[in-house]
Amino acid sequence: MAETPLYFSAADRERLEPHLPPPQSPSQSKRTDSPPLSSTLPFITLTFATSLDSALALGPGIRTALSGPQSKAMTHYLRSRHDAICVGVGTAIADDPGLNSRLADDAHVSDVVSVEDESSTRHRIITHQPRPVIIDPRLRWDFTAQSRVMRLAREGKGLAPYIVTLEREPPVHKRSILEGLGGKFIVLNAEQAHQGGSSGTHHLDWRVILSAVRQEGLGSIMIEGGAEVINSLLGENTNLVDSVIVTIAPTWLGQGGVTVSPPRTFGADRPVARLSDTMWLPLGDDIVLCGRIAR
Amino acid sequence: MAETPLYFSAADRERLEPHLPPPQSPSQSKRTDSPPLSSTLPFITLTFATSLDSALALGPGIRTALSGPQSKAMTHYLRSRHDAICVGVGTAIADDPGLNSRLADDAHVSDVVSVEDESSTRHRIITHQPRPVIIDPRLRWDFTAQSRVMRLAREGKGLAPYIVTLEREPPVHKRSILEGLGGKFIVLNAEQAHQGGSSGTHHLDWRVILSAVRQEGLGSIMIEGGAEVINSLLGENTNLVDSVIVTIAPTWLGQGGVTVSPPRTFGADRPVARLSDTMWLPLGDDIVLCGRIAR
Repeated sequence: MAETPLYFSAADRERLEPHLPPPQSPSQSKRTDSPPLSSTLPFITLTFATSLDSALALGPGIRTALSGPQSKAMTHYLRSRHDAICVGVGTAIADDPGLNSRLADDAHVSDVVSVEDESSTRHRIITHQPRPVIIDPRLRWDFTAQSRVMRLAREGKGLAPYIVTLEREPPVHKRSILEGLGGKFIVLNAEQAHQGGSSGTHHLDWRVILSAVRQEGLGSIMIEGGAEVINSLLGENTNLVDSVIVTIAPTWLGQGGVTVSPPRTFGADRPVARLSDTMWLPLGDDIVLCGRIAR
Repeated sequence: MAETPLYFSAADRERLEPHLPPPQSPSQSKRTDSPPLSSTLPFITLTFATSLDSALALGPGIRTALSGPQSKAMTHYLRSRHDAICVGVGTAIADDPGLNSRLADDAHVSDVVSVEDESSTRHRIITHQPRPVIIDPRLRWDFTAQSRVMRLAREGKGLAPYIVTLEREPPVHKRSILEGLGGKFIVLNAEQAHQGGSSGTHHLDWRVILSAVRQEGLGSIMIEGGAEVINSLLGENTNLVDSVIVTIAPTWLGQGGVTVSPPRTFGADRPVARLSDTMWLPLGDDIVLCGRIAR
């Protein structure tokens, strides 16, 4: 897949600004000391792209192109504006995602990663790269040194992931690949991390995950998917979410898709979640909805 | 339920214009002779309001307020711009719908129905009223003279419905209520109207239904729901649809809702339908998407 730089206009950036974490200062984004007690969680942005029938993909494991080039550029801009980018293990397995930012950007330089495209010196990807965070309680993701996120890290086009897990002893060869590129395993305490009452499943307590992310000095995180992760955050964990940015493409994938639709946490007789302070931003054929969870 | 007039701005009307049937001329809307052969089908607008998770309602038979006052006014404007408004029998039973237009409008007067609200002479509903068309193959809708659409027709605030059915002998007392208010049963030929191969079900051939509507001198029809009707049109009958207008409210109803998601008519590996020539119109908290089915 080509690593073409993506452009996102200053006007659109400005419209998104109220829905983003405060801009990173160099001192903040390079900080490695513990965060102050007043801030035990990062700024959390939930973002994803669906069809009109709320599907992320045609089916499980089927990577589906939904949004257009302008929405894609927006996603890479959002990535550049967060310290971390998070996906669940299902997405890591299904998509072999890059989890970097390909934003071409002179205006927004914080941690500078400068890459010259071999085919043309006109193209420059100069942007802050987010830290990939992959939620993989049982280490189902069988990554190698050739997995896309690892390759990009090796090429200086992104960062190696932090993998959040319950497994106390990750395999040595995996640890070697990961740590060699600057990534790591974050091993959670299983008793703390299991969400109450559902210890038979592998659902983790988001507060524990996100506290661990904050402990790594990451002040903001953009959570991208997949469906299980999104539905979990919209259903039972909306209190953790600071900002929601949804891209909708004018297409119906049809029955059988992998859909966003949270469980009815509060009973069957009322909506699960509503956004307030909404802003609708047309981007190409798509629309981008920004808002906050109404409390 | 209050019959408050609704207002819809001239600017928004202008933006919708490319997505609507040509304006009715008095001669056209009053025409009762057969349409020319060149036009055997009416102009068909498919329109509905969903949540972000593509739900029309919290559950079967649960009337769910989704869109805001401005989107509601738009719906009543759309109704005033079509000769007919169509719902399936499920919606008629579940919602006891009015199927009229409450648009307050001096600028757009074609067939004039002038009503003075008893409580105030300031309020005037002056608008073209669409003909309600209810698709009820087996006459499951047990309407009475007190059903809302009948009451509105009696009060001069709307028209009595045309009920499209396969039952050759509708009950005499139903016929009496309906015809006394200016409505009628439209009895389709069962052999023609059953969609090929599914004669065991009550699915009708939309082309036969819509031809019958056109034969009544109705040159445009707005199809509002419910889910079964919408999914049928988006799944197998997109070739009949001239315009699609979808309102999306920034809320998630959650799992278990009645959803719009058409069957995968063309196989599991590609989207069912996509809109082209799209226009996104923010209205209050909601967004309105207008487009044509991409061929």
